[in-house]
Amino acid sequence: MPSNRLAAQIAFIHEIDKLKYIRRKTRLFNSDRNENDAEHSWHLAVMAIVLAEHADEDIDLLKVLKMVLIHDIVEIDAGDTFLFDTVKGHDNTEEELEAAKRIFGVLPEDQAEELIKIWQEFEARNSPEAKFARTLDRFEPVLQNISNKGGTWAEFDISYPKVMEKVKVIKNGSARIWDYSEARIRESVDQGILREQ
Amino acid sequence: MPSNRLAAQIAFIHEIDKLKYIRRKTRLFNSDRNENDAEHSWHLAVMAIVLAEHADEDIDLLKVLKMVLIHDIVEIDAGDTFLFDTVKGHDNTEEELEAAKRIFGVLPEDQAEELIKIWQEFEARNSPEAKFARTLDRFEPVLQNISNKGGTWAEFDISYPKVMEKVKVIKNGSARIWDYSEARIRESVDQGILREQ
Ligand SMILES: [Ca+2]
Repeated sequence: MPSNRLAAQIAFIHEIDKLKYIRRKTRLFNSDRNENDAEHSWHLAVMAIVLAEHADEDIDLLKVLKMVLIHDIVEIDAGDTFLFDTVKGHDNTEEELEAAKRIFGVLPEDQAEELIKIWQEFEARNSPEAKFARTLDRFEPVLQNISNKGGTWAEFDISYPKVMEKVKVIKNGSARIWDYSEARIRESVDQGILREQ
Repeated sequence: MPSNRLAAQIAFIHEIDKLKYIRRKTRLFNSDRNENDAEHSWHLAVMAIVLAEHADEDIDLLKVLKMVLIHDIVEIDAGDTFLFDTVKGHDNTEEELEAAKRIFGVLPEDQAEELIKIWQEFEARNSPEAKFARTLDRFEPVLQNISNKGGTWAEFDISYPKVMEKVKVIKNGSARIWDYSEARIRESVDQGILREQ
């Protein structure tokens, strides 16, 4: 007989498999295949490992990894919110909080509490770890869109000022990654894959 | 201008996107869709977080996470080796070492060295972290196959003794996860989704 804890943990491991079906608007690098949330979360985690040195503040890498690995799990219930969606914002919604409670709630109580807290910290955007995790979360689609001749910027006809407004949070976690992003986005205008206005 | 380090790190972030195209034989939970290596690596990482308490030895969770997140990156060059493949073993091959050197070699030298070392530690199966990471790596397909009425065991006509021989490494990292696995695999025989001999 497994302990109740192990049984609950395994139920959670089953439940989160659904993240592999949540498709993002952004596409893989040099590709027309949409990325799913599990792949995206994996990519952010490896990015956290290799880019940690560029965080402006001291970060606890273990916490950043937990954060990026679980940050989108609420989308199993609440769905992916596209960054440039003008109707539904990308903010922490009541729906997402309910999702967090239901899905993390499958775990033993102490673990549910820990992961909900980490997810809320990510959503609150205040801690050094949350700021850096959000830098990565915004930076990956910038790289993808550039590799895809504009990607979702072109597909949804987003202008340079709008892109800049949405991605400027990259700056909150890393000045260096922001400088790089800014230069590459500006280049995208020059290359005609992002419209100036 | 990005620093040379950042440029190399971004080149690596591009390169590893290819892991999303490496398809495993195993399928998602209750599904006929094959899992890819990026999804698999993400799932193992979340499993590491929620199952860490069941590791028999003290483990450094950050190291386990790095390990599972990068353990399959060599398959970008070397391809996935199916656990029950009778021709090509699942062991650390010369081909995989070349792959590790090429792919991690895209990173700045110190980071390449660190990640190659972690990958080699995983392959060597000796440290507490490697043993626990391998427990997770074998445990996920057990859960998937059970959820898929036998999954790859049925598809490739694998018998109970053969399954036990291949998954017994689960025991090296966690007696509790092994007890659970053993019971569930035995149950699979009773349920007729795994042949006895
Ligand atoms: Ca999201």
